Amino acid sequence: MSELRRDPTLGYWTIMASERGWRPAEYTSKKIAEEQRECPFCEGKESMTTSEIFAIRKPGSQPNAPGWEVRSIMSKIPILKDVTGGDWQESMGHGVYDVREGIGRHEVVVETPQHHQDLDNFSLEHIQKVIKAYAERIRAAEKNSTFEYALLFKNHGLVSGAARDVIRHSRSQLIALPIIPKRIREQLAMTKNYYERRERCLFCDILRKESTEGSRIVVQNDSFFAYCPFASRSPFEISIFPKKHTADFTAMEELLYPDLAWILKQCLVRLRNLLDDPPYNLILNTAPFRHKKQKTYWKTIEQDYHWSWQITPRLTMNAGFEWGTGIHINPTPPEEAAALLREASGDE
Amino acid sequence: MSELRRDPTLGYWTIMASERGWRPAEYTSKKIAEEQRECPFCEGKESMTTSEIFAIRKPGSQPNAPGWEVRSIMSKIPILKDVTGGDWQESMGHGVYDVREGIGRHEVVVETPQHHQDLDNFSLEHIQKVIKAYAERIRAAEKNSTFEYALLFKNHGLVSGAARDVIRHSRSQLIALPIIPKRIREQLAMTKNYYERRERCLFCDILRKESTEGSRIVVQNDSFFAYCPFASRSPFEISIFPKKHTADFTAMEELLYPDLAWILKQCLVRLRNLLDDPPYNLILNTAPFRHKKQKTYWKTIEQDYHWSWQITPRLTMNAGFEWGTGIHINPTPPEEAAALLREASGDE
Repeated sequence: MSELRRDPTLGYWTIMASERGWRPAEYTSKKIAEEQRECPFCEGKESMTTSEIFAIRKPGSQPNAPGWEVRSIMSKIPILKDVTGGDWQESMGHGVYDVREGIGRHEVVVETPQHHQDLDNFSLEHIQKVIKAYAERIRAAEKNSTFEYALLFKNHGLVSGAARDVIRHSRSQLIALPIIPKRIREQLAMTKNYYERRERCLFCDILRKESTEGSRIVVQNDSFFAYCPFASRSPFEISIFPKKHTADFTAMEELLYPDLAWILKQCLVRLRNLLDDPPYNLILNTAPFRHKKQKTYWKTIEQDYHWSWQITPRLTMNAGFEWGTGIHINPTPPEEAAALLREASGDE
Repeated sequence: MSELRRDPTLGYWTIMASERGWRPAEYTSKKIAEEQRECPFCEGKESMTTSEIFAIRKPGSQPNAPGWEVRSIMSKIPILKDVTGGDWQESMGHGVYDVREGIGRHEVVVETPQHHQDLDNFSLEHIQKVIKAYAERIRAAEKNSTFEYALLFKNHGLVSGAARDVIRHSRSQLIALPIIPKRIREQLAMTKNYYERRERCLFCDILRKESTEGSRIVVQNDSFFAYCPFASRSPFEISIFPKKHTADFTAMEELLYPDLAWILKQCLVRLRNLLDDPPYNLILNTAPFRHKKQKTYWKTIEQDYHWSWQITPRLTMNAGFEWGTGIHINPTPPEEAAALLREASGDE
């Protein structure tokens, strides 16, 4: 089964997805994966997926049958194994190495019953239902005390995801982990440190600065603010923050859903119009689950952390320099990117 | 000009390569870059490059003219500006942000006068000359006290580099930086901490463990050890370490060059035979320059750190999960990869 392994020299974790067990031939095949004939995510094809674990449905419709609007299922080839309760081990030493069983959850949120639709052409009402599904599914993952963190993300377009079994049906993935990734722990440490020195949230300070400066703003409304980050690693990267300080996405009030649906759609439509439907990753950055109360950063996390969406168009390729230093090269500064996105049409 | 910008929430630096200044049309062009008609790196085309700054040449031949075997030039579109002495600024605050001028060096080491040759089919004698050139050019960068770190790397094959102006002529790049990248600082901290607790080098302990365990060994000789790392982020990743503890690549004795040439070629030939000439990044991990003696980790770096080569085949695509968590998913565990590489032919 899968394993989580930690590198002793850099501290990162890797998931060894042994179930996938790719042999050399699977990497060397030159053919680009063609779209499957039958899409298992379309309405009417519910029997092709694993059992439905959540759905927003039309009144009177039945689970695992047509009539749904947003639907959640477990991945058919999960990268981590979902074990509810008992039978698994904590982290183990292995000489200089750390390893633990690949326990977690790998879920797919199918965002529409219709093929060839996506977040940028859903109605605002439908995007609100998708947002509601995201929140519900993260809350469901939180109930399992094995999981310390859940990442909700979307791979749009060929380049941004695995090239195998490519199906262009709008969906996101939710991966719950038994660890807090190094990236998130570092961010928690930085925001906690900032708050201790200034008694202000780092992200709230960034919003104030960006709001005053103006050159990196993309679009905003009463509740949300979208801008191109100062040190964007990818050209045309966009961050969307709630204006009201909140650490957890799941703590957002439902009355903000219309404003969030509008700004998400605005950003995605502008990117599509400006960059001809670029491949992108949509990522939700939110606070980790807080089961183990003794962790010191939990005590202040509600004041330190601030949730956000991150939209990362995949327009450049990372090469040896990025891999060797962790420093990305961005040929389009965020001020230029934001100016072009402000000018771009927000109409479908 | 270029700028280095630091993200305040995660601490990474990004290079804003404004000189490149790509507009949307440069990202949306669907055509794959074709190989240029004339390759500026071939023998006889020296006038197409910037002036030669280093070369290993046949006796009697002249700079910037045929007769060279390995040749170094400055990049025509450098991502950082080379300023020797004076006219530049240290890091500046900018509200919550850190920024500094994009000072550095971006150099190209052309590894052969012949087109369509590469490290995996050079003679062992020629690879030794390439190794010598690498060491010379890193020593030259070290003489500039502005530079704190230099990364030597190679992007082999289309996927691993920028897709623009693709020229398949074997070369590496040397990028010298006015900062120590976060990745390297973290590794220095981890190795220092390990030494303090154990009074042994972490990398030497890894070599001992890998040597005893055996399942991840690819190939070895008297001086070098090649294996697939325990937490490999990429399938078929290989690390090559000197068996004798050394922090700096440039401190390696020349009498080890034949052994290094042999193991580098062995690894690359086996990868090519097993995976049909895969795209890869070759990266040199070596200790930072030590101009500012007061830094505490400099005092023990010679005992803490251990240089290595890293060969990272680019066979999978990073998607939202990797981007959002920093955790990579590897579908081929290193034990399987190493077994296949051991079985693969090491003959050209």
